[in-house]
Amino acid sequence: MRAIVFDGSLRCVADRPTPARRDADVLIRVHLAGLCATDLEITRGYMDFAGVPGHEFVGTVEEGPDALRGKRVVGEINCVCGKCDLCTGGLANHCRSRTVLGIAGRDGAFADFLALPAVNCHIVPPELSDEEAVFVEPLAAAIQITRQVKLEPKLRVTVLGSGRLGTLVAQVLASRGCRPVVVGRNPETLGRLDRRGIQTALVRDVQRFGDQDLVVDCTGSPEGASLALKFVRPRGTIVMKSTCAAAVPLDLAPLVVNEVTLLGSRCGPFPEAIAALVRREVEVRSMIQRQFPLSRGLEAFETASKPGSLKILVKAGA
Amino acid sequence: MRAIVFDGSLRCVADRPTPARRDADVLIRVHLAGLCATDLEITRGYMDFAGVPGHEFVGTVEEGPDALRGKRVVGEINCVCGKCDLCTGGLANHCRSRTVLGIAGRDGAFADFLALPAVNCHIVPPELSDEEAVFVEPLAAAIQITRQVKLEPKLRVTVLGSGRLGTLVAQVLASRGCRPVVVGRNPETLGRLDRRGIQTALVRDVQRFGDQDLVVDCTGSPEGASLALKFVRPRGTIVMKSTCAAAVPLDLAPLVVNEVTLLGSRCGPFPEAIAALVRREVEVRSMIQRQFPLSRGLEAFETASKPGSLKILVKAGA
Repeated sequence: MRAIVFDGSLRCVADRPTPARRDADVLIRVHLAGLCATDLEITRGYMDFAGVPGHEFVGTVEEGPDALRGKRVVGEINCVCGKCDLCTGGLANHCRSRTVLGIAGRDGAFADFLALPAVNCHIVPPELSDEEAVFVEPLAAAIQITRQVKLEPKLRVTVLGSGRLGTLVAQVLASRGCRPVVVGRNPETLGRLDRRGIQTALVRDVQRFGDQDLVVDCTGSPEGASLALKFVRPRGTIVMKSTCAAAVPLDLAPLVVNEVTLLGSRCGPFPEAIAALVRREVEVRSMIQRQFPLSRGLEAFETASKPGSLKILVKAGA
Repeated sequence: MRAIVFDGSLRCVADRPTPARRDADVLIRVHLAGLCATDLEITRGYMDFAGVPGHEFVGTVEEGPDALRGKRVVGEINCVCGKCDLCTGGLANHCRSRTVLGIAGRDGAFADFLALPAVNCHIVPPELSDEEAVFVEPLAAAIQITRQVKLEPKLRVTVLGSGRLGTLVAQVLASRGCRPVVVGRNPETLGRLDRRGIQTALVRDVQRFGDQDLVVDCTGSPEGASLALKFVRPRGTIVMKSTCAAAVPLDLAPLVVNEVTLLGSRCGPFPEAIAALVRREVEVRSMIQRQFPLSRGLEAFETASKPGSLKILVKAGA
């Protein structure tokens, strides 16, 4: 099959073997896959991943149990053992021997086919187009914040980063009654948020610091934590969504002195994300910048890595 | 008066003016002052402090209201405005225009006298000696953890660092029914904890990582956060007690991926600390390594900065 492969360098190949189905896997023909910051970080060495990247997708089950065969699905990315202390302790997403689609030990979605456990699949309702369904995974990650932090309308909330994830997070927070301010460097992406009715500010224009109840780091930059520590109030909360390949100097004294809570946040609930899209609480179609056919996957990566780029999709079967 | 002064270098002087009492201050004749890691960090540039360091003390009120004059007191270190958004919002310890005894904008306790607001003072009950009372401030900081984290006997708890603060934290956690393991580098300080009946381990002997529900960083080292991230389980909690002058490279990806909660923790409740000492829940006398007279303050700093040192006290009036 065709695939984008990273093994130190990124290539498009035509002769990747169709992934073998492990025990409870289904085989999925990929329709669309989305590029996210983690994919770009992988090409910089994050997770030491080698193989087919890509973990945001929508596709059709080609091989698998009757209940799923022929169905259009999206899929949770953590493939777990079900037996370790974390799996049996209610933290299966953190399974000690997990593989993660396109991120750790399992080929991902920038390919004609992918294999994923049947239990990871969620059927896409007919109300959602492929172009919307491909956002379920990152939207679920944005919704995860609402499970970790008690949101109230009166909270002063700042989202750092006006890119793909920041746009989803801001919409999710707004849908829960908050009025987030998105702070970024790029006037163009901030302008798009303005047009959605979300408050924005250029980071260089911000004059007040240390007064935000909640700061969500969606910068995708290793400098995001330091910036968040400037914005948050004493005893406030920072949610970190960025995963980066680089370790950068970070002065944690402000965290200690101001008794800040720093929360790591990763994958989220797929059913809630599907429901939010069906209810049109979150609008994603206008976030799509461009689609590339799988055969032009390298261009897709190049385009996604440019500042201010929004969602780049890779279309298999094209 | 005599004082230890830091203004880029550390000196003992005999001609420091007795501190002026501001509005609601009392003047306190210092009996004993304790040296802590923050004092050592101040001599490395932490907080850009210039003046008399020292914030752990016991003394007698010489000038002030009748209710306090002649009384033996310990004192909370944050001197606050009472008017800003944080003071009126229940977070007075984080007052935006605070001074902090011996740390920020206010001369501290390594001197014959110090000035502190009357409301900061707590009368020391006669059951406590000066040598015990001087531990109230750091013990309160240790007790602060119990206000931030729900402790249960079944929690797997690691304390990183077997020094002064680690010893207090381990005792506090043990007094709340936990069975912490103190992990450190120094066989001698770990041995002292063993003899208190607290479990210990040399960091180089630890083989299991990623399984601790709660990790408390008392290393006083900028590397403490990275080490804590190795010990903590997915969705576990790290409490950071160390404040350091240095920013060191920190890879926050494990915090995000493992959805760890990192809590900054600073000053704590004095009444609870006094009560814990009166009830003998925490034993501090054997933590005292040595007392130096104020005139030999530089030796006190040198001794406290040696690996494995426990509490060094500076005795004024001597």
